Amino acid sequence: MSESTRPHPDHAATFSPAAFRLARAEGNKRLRGSGELFESFFALDGAAYQAGALPVATKELLGLVVSVMKDCEECVYYHLERCDEEGVSRDQVVETLQIALVGAGSVTVPLLRRAMSFMSRLPRLGVS
Amino acid sequence: MSESTRPHPDHAATFSPAAFRLARAEGNKRLRGSGELFESFFALDGAAYQAGALPVATKELLGLVVSVMKDCEECVYYHLERCDEEGVSRDQVVETLQIALVGAGSVTVPLLRRAMSFMSRLPRLGVS
Amino acid sequence: MSESTRPHPDHAATFSPAAFRLARAEGNKRLRGSGELFESFFALDGAAYQAGALPVATKELLGLVVSVMKDCEECVYYHLERCDEEGVSRDQVVETLQIALVGAGSVTVPLLRRAMSFMSRLPRLGVS
Amino acid sequence: MSESTRPHPDHAATFSPAAFRLARAEGNKRLRGSGELFESFFALDGAAYQAGALPVATKELLGLVVSVMKDCEECVYYHLERCDEEGVSRDQVVETLQIALVGAGSVTVPLLRRAMSFMSRLPRLGVS
Amino acid sequence: MSESTRPHPDHAATFSPAAFRLARAEGNKRLRGSGELFESFFALDGAAYQAGALPVATKELLGLVVSVMKDCEECVYYHLERCDEEGVSRDQVVETLQIALVGAGSVTVPLLRRAMSFMSRLPRLGVS
Amino acid sequence: MSESTRPHPDHAATFSPAAFRLARAEGNKRLRGSGELFESFFALDGAAYQAGALPVATKELLGLVVSVMKDCEECVYYHLERCDEEGVSRDQVVETLQIALVGAGSVTVPLLRRAMSFMSRLPRLGVS
Repeated sequence: MSESTRPHPDHAATFSPAAFRLARAEGNKRLRGSGELFESFFALDGAAYQAGALPVATKELLGLVVSVMKDCEECVYYHLERCDEEGVSRDQVVETLQIALVGAGSVTVPLLRRAMSFMSRLPRLGVS
Repeated sequence: MSESTRPHPDHAATFSPAAFRLARAEGNKRLRGSGELFESFFALDGAAYQAGALPVATKELLGLVVSVMKDCEECVYYHLERCDEEGVSRDQVVETLQIALVGAGSVTVPLLRRAMSFMSRLPRLGVS
Repeated sequence: MSESTRPHPDHAATFSPAAFRLARAEGNKRLRGSGELFESFFALDGAAYQAGALPVATKELLGLVVSVMKDCEECVYYHLERCDEEGVSRDQVVETLQIALVGAGSVTVPLLRRAMSFMSRLPRLGVS
Repeated sequence: MSESTRPHPDHAATFSPAAFRLARAEGNKRLRGSGELFESFFALDGAAYQAGALPVATKELLGLVVSVMKDCEECVYYHLERCDEEGVSRDQVVETLQIALVGAGSVTVPLLRRAMSFMSRLPRLGVS
Repeated sequence: MSESTRPHPDHAATFSPAAFRLARAEGNKRLRGSGELFESFFALDGAAYQAGALPVATKELLGLVVSVMKDCEECVYYHLERCDEEGVSRDQVVETLQIALVGAGSVTVPLLRRAMSFMSRLPRLGVS
Repeated sequence: MSESTRPHPDHAATFSPAAFRLARAEGNKRLRGSGELFESFFALDGAAYQAGALPVATKELLGLVVSVMKDCEECVYYHLERCDEEGVSRDQVVETLQIALVGAGSVTVPLLRRAMSFMSRLPRLGVS
C-alpha cells in the first residue's frame, strides 16, 4: 500500500454528509443481516430516541454527549445530522460540546475539532 | 481492619443527600485550596452549566450522561440533585438514563441501580 | 457520618454471594419497574447469553472479560457466579482473567484481586 | 495535504488481510527493537493466548472482546485473523460480537460494522 | 446486610496507609499464587518503574497519571505512597494531578478529592 | 467515494510533523472562535503545562501518558513534538511509553507503534 493514502490525523471532514449517511446505512444493513440480536438492538436504540418526556431534539443532544464521551467519531456525525434535522441551533450544539469538554477534558479536543468541521457542512447548522 | 466494614457492592444508597452535599463541598474546598488551577477549573465547569442557548435543566441532564458514561458515582448523585433543584421530572431523568444505557451497554446497570436508589431520596424526584 | 464506616479499598469481599444475588435482584426489579425500555434491554442481554454456536459457559467467560474491561465490580461477581453454575473450572476463569490483565494492563489488578477473593466463596469454584 | 485523501469514516475495510499482517509485523519489530520491556511484554501477551485449560480458539474470542471493549480496530482485525486460523465459525464470532454490543452499547456499532467487513475478506470466515 | 455499613461515596480516606499496604500485599500474594502469568506480569510492571533514563520519582508521577486516567483508586494510593517514599514534593504531586484534571476533565474530581485526603496521611507528603 | 482512499489501519505516519502542526492550529482556531469557553479551556490547559515544581519536559511526558491512556492519537503526536522541543531524550520517551503499556495493556500497542513512527520524523528525537 502506498503511504500517500494515509490521511492527516487532524483532517477536516471532507466527505459529504450524504455519502456518510449512505455508507452507514449499508454497514448497518450488513450488521442486521448477520444475526437477529443486532436487529433487536437497533430497535431498542431507536426506541430510546423517540419523543417522550423529553423532546427528540434534547435526546439527540444527549446522544451527542454519549458519542463524545466514548470517542465515537461516526456516532458524533450521526447525532449532528439528527440535530440538524430536528432544528437544534448551532449554539445549542456548541454548549453541549462544551459540557463534554469540561467533563471529559482536553483529550476530547481532536474529536471536537472534527465535529465543528462536520457541522459546517450540514444544511442548517452549517449556515448559521 | 475488620472485614465487617465492607459494604455490599450492590447497596442501596443509604446516606442522606444532605450529608453527601456537605462532604462534597468539604472535599472541593480542600481541592481548591491546593492550587490555583483547581479553582479555575471549577469556575470553568460552573460556566459550562450556566443558562444559555440551552436551559439549565437540559444541561444538568447532559451532565448526568457525562457522569454515567465515565462511571462517576458521585457525579451522578450531584447531577441528580441539580435536576431535582431545577424541576426536571422523574420521567425525563429516566429517559436520559435509558439513552446512556443503550449507548454504553449493560456495564452501566449497577450505576443505574444506584442512581434510581439515590433519586428516591430526593425531595421532588423521590415523590413522583 | 462516622468515618469508621469507610471500607478498606483493597478489601476482601466479605458479603455472601447469596446476599449479593438478592440485592442485585431487588435493584434490577426497581429498574425494570422504572420504564419499559429497561425491561427490553434486560431481555436482550439475556438473549445474548443463551446457548447458540457457543456454549453458555464460554459466553459467561466472554461476559467476564466485558466486565473487567469496564471495571464493573458487580458485573464481575455476577459472571463469576454464572461461571460457577455452569461448571466452568477455576483454571478456565484464571486464564480468562489473565487475558484481561495482559489486554488492559496493571490498572485491572485491584479488580482481579477482588475477583479472586469473591471466587473463593463460591460453592464450586471456591473449592478447587 | 489534499483533502481528498480523507477516508470515509464509515468505510469498508479495503486493504487485504495479508497487507495488514505485514504492516503489523513491521511495526511490532520496530517496537521490539526500541527497548527490552516491549519484547518481554509481547512474550507475556503470547503466553496468555497459549492453549491451557481453555482452547486457543476460545482465547481468541476472549481477545476479540478485549479489543472491542477498548475500541482497538487493529486488535479486532488481528483476533479475527487468529479466529480464522483456529477454525472458529462465523456464528461463533457473531455471537461474541453480540455479547460485546449488549455489554458496551451502541457506541461499539461502527467498530462492529468494520469487523464484519474485515471478516468477509478472510479465507475461511469470509466464505461461510 | 445492614444498610448502615454503606460508606459515604465522597468519603475521606480513613484507613491508615500502613493497613492499605498490608491488604494490598496479601491480595497480590493470592493473585501471584493463582497462576504463573500473574507473577510474570508483576515482574514486568516492576521493571517498568526501575530507574533508567528517567528517575524513579518521575516514573511514579507517570504511574499516578496512569492511575487517575483509569479511575483506579487503589493504584492512586499506591503511587502516592511511592511518591512519598521517593521524596516527591507535595507541589509536584499537585501539578501532576492538575495535568490529569485538565486532560481528563471534571469526572476525575471525586478521585482527586480522595487522592488529596490520602496524601494528607502520608509521612512526608502529609506534613508539607 | 472510492474505496482506494481507505488507509491501512496499521499505517506508518506519513504526514510531516509540520503539516500536522498547521492543521492542528487551524482546527483549534476554529474551535476557539466557536465560543468563549473553548478559549478559557485552552488557557487552563496551557497553564497546567507551565514550568512550576515540575519542569516543562516532565509535564510533557505526563501529557504523553494522558494521551496514550485515552487513545488520543493527535494528542500523542502533539506531546511528542513538545518533548522534542524541550530536549527530552528518546530513551525517556520510550520509558514513558513502557509505563503506559504496562499500565494499560496490549490494547495500547497499535498507538505505540504509531508513536514510534511519528517520533522517527521529529528533528531531534528522530535522529538518536
